[in-house]
Amino acid sequence: MVGVAVIGYGVVGSGVVELLDKNSKLFEKKAGQTVECKYILDIRDFPGDKYEDKHIKDFNIIINDPEINIVVETVGGATFAYEYTKKALRAGKHVVSSNKELVATYGSELLAIAKENNVCYLFEASVGGGIPIINPLYHCLAANEIHKIVGILNGTTNYILTKMIREGLSFETALKQAQQLGYAEANPSADIEGHDTCRKICILAALAFGRHVYPQNVKTVGITNVTLDDIAKAESMGRVIKLLGSAEKKEDGTVEIFVAPCAIPKDHPLANIEDVFNGITVTGDAVGDCTFYGRGAGKFPTASAVGADIVDCIKGTEKSNIMWVDSDNAEFVRSFDKLELEYLDKEIVLLD
Amino acid sequence: MVGVAVIGYGVVGSGVVELLDKNSKLFEKKAGQTVECKYILDIRDFPGDKYEDKHIKDFNIIINDPEINIVVETVGGATFAYEYTKKALRAGKHVVSSNKELVATYGSELLAIAKENNVCYLFEASVGGGIPIINPLYHCLAANEIHKIVGILNGTTNYILTKMIREGLSFETALKQAQQLGYAEANPSADIEGHDTCRKICILAALAFGRHVYPQNVKTVGITNVTLDDIAKAESMGRVIKLLGSAEKKEDGTVEIFVAPCAIPKDHPLANIEDVFNGITVTGDAVGDCTFYGRGAGKFPTASAVGADIVDCIKGTEKSNIMWVDSDNAEFVRSFDKLELEYLDKEIVLLD
Repeated sequence: MVGVAVIGYGVVGSGVVELLDKNSKLFEKKAGQTVECKYILDIRDFPGDKYEDKHIKDFNIIINDPEINIVVETVGGATFAYEYTKKALRAGKHVVSSNKELVATYGSELLAIAKENNVCYLFEASVGGGIPIINPLYHCLAANEIHKIVGILNGTTNYILTKMIREGLSFETALKQAQQLGYAEANPSADIEGHDTCRKICILAALAFGRHVYPQNVKTVGITNVTLDDIAKAESMGRVIKLLGSAEKKEDGTVEIFVAPCAIPKDHPLANIEDVFNGITVTGDAVGDCTFYGRGAGKFPTASAVGADIVDCIKGTEKSNIMWVDSDNAEFVRSFDKLELEYLDKEIVLLD
Repeated sequence: MVGVAVIGYGVVGSGVVELLDKNSKLFEKKAGQTVECKYILDIRDFPGDKYEDKHIKDFNIIINDPEINIVVETVGGATFAYEYTKKALRAGKHVVSSNKELVATYGSELLAIAKENNVCYLFEASVGGGIPIINPLYHCLAANEIHKIVGILNGTTNYILTKMIREGLSFETALKQAQQLGYAEANPSADIEGHDTCRKICILAALAFGRHVYPQNVKTVGITNVTLDDIAKAESMGRVIKLLGSAEKKEDGTVEIFVAPCAIPKDHPLANIEDVFNGITVTGDAVGDCTFYGRGAGKFPTASAVGADIVDCIKGTEKSNIMWVDSDNAEFVRSFDKLELEYLDKEIVLLD
């Protein structure tokens, strides 16, 4: 039996607990042994919850229980989650995470701690929700020099832009609609200002190019200034506007990375990815362009990605491990003034 | 050092040899040791070939050389390749294959032999060329009950249909053009009659549902009877015609599987995948729909998939292994008379 502790019982955490329960036979078949959620840690109370007997408040119970092999971190943020993750890895437990902020901020350090302790730190769920992208990029395209990654990595902003394009809604009205539907948070700034997309493109860039990319070194423009006039102008050129994260290895060895609304041709592989869907196009020297798309967020899609990482932890530490090195971004990431971008106008990038 | 022998020096085989050479540093980094092609086996001579010193004619040299850890089988067909594969696996060598006919015909037997001998039999390149689909389906979506797989799995027929739809060419003219461009073979029947697609959907169905599906139990209709009238009729309904392989788990536990030209709505995830590109949509209970697309054939895209499997063989037998059981398809695969399909007319399926 493999024991799992889930820390953070929000949308994703509760999805993981339910999925482990619902698809328990499948986990047993794929992992070769039963997989059971033993503890749920959250500071909040959940009276009447189906899994009430599993709820605990003390993280040390998890650390000190030799039956816990895997800690699922769905806390979010880079404070408590950072401490929990380090402690769990140092206690010899695999950690599976959906926390893009933590991975983008401390990924190289946490991967090194995992390696020292011969455990896995996996985070398929941190980018693209349920879409398999981290494992395909790192393992399935292992034989490729990766040249470029471009993606629609945030469902909220893609929903807002889709509504602006398809229905002519203003940014403000579309945002309000997204909030009413639960796609955007009350404070939507991490989404609409591009920070969420930035964390995700940093993670993908680190996987592809082998060195940590710090979000503060990435030029990040959100969609708050995109107007219906911009959309009409793009349309007149046969283009649509999408918020993209882009990372490209240049001939001088630097990585050109940015987040911005981009006007892309209508036959671009990402042009038809609408609503809350995410899509990522990876360009490798052997494979050419390869595109992945699906639900980039949500309870069960994200739990699906966590579940795959749980199975990976069980089946083989060595095989599953990801590695990138920490780096001074000064020489590795192109500085803002050296980005070779063309603009539609304002800060909307023209991208082919 | 890991020694590789490539058997079959055609388009894919020569791509693998070149990729191992060109990206040797990448292979070393990903696999943790150097990977070298030591032998190339082909009945033909290649005088002046860049890798002439590696060419051999006797398969026993490979079998008897303890330095050969991995045999890459890009021979094709299910006769010589079948014997070579069994011998290599029994000699304790991993086998990596791009041979869909062999996997679709003898997959369960070869997987069992691999397991007995504690080696891998991997075949990412057998479906979708360079697109990572087998590993994502089997490993990355491990936490999902897979409900359905639908795919454009053959580039030749997708090219022909694209030309008919976009340029109004007749089937015969479009086929001739595909042959001139090298997309279709002189004898194109395996492609245009749907057999190639059939083998690939059989492999995906076996991976998703755990039991071998024999091609002869799959209703297979090609595109030879698709006319410009059919395309116009589909267009009038807001649809396009694509040759699809489809496999769906039904509530009674049977799998409904078929290959046919299908009229799909223009907003279907596969509707915009054109020319020689392939695309596959997988539906899982947790992830929902997830689509993968890219180059489904060609020298380097296919070599990219072989390369990933080579790295997987080196990094971890246990983790990488795929397994499905042999099965009498009588109870598992829906018989032809029980397929619940709607038709546009003739044998063109209406699919949403």
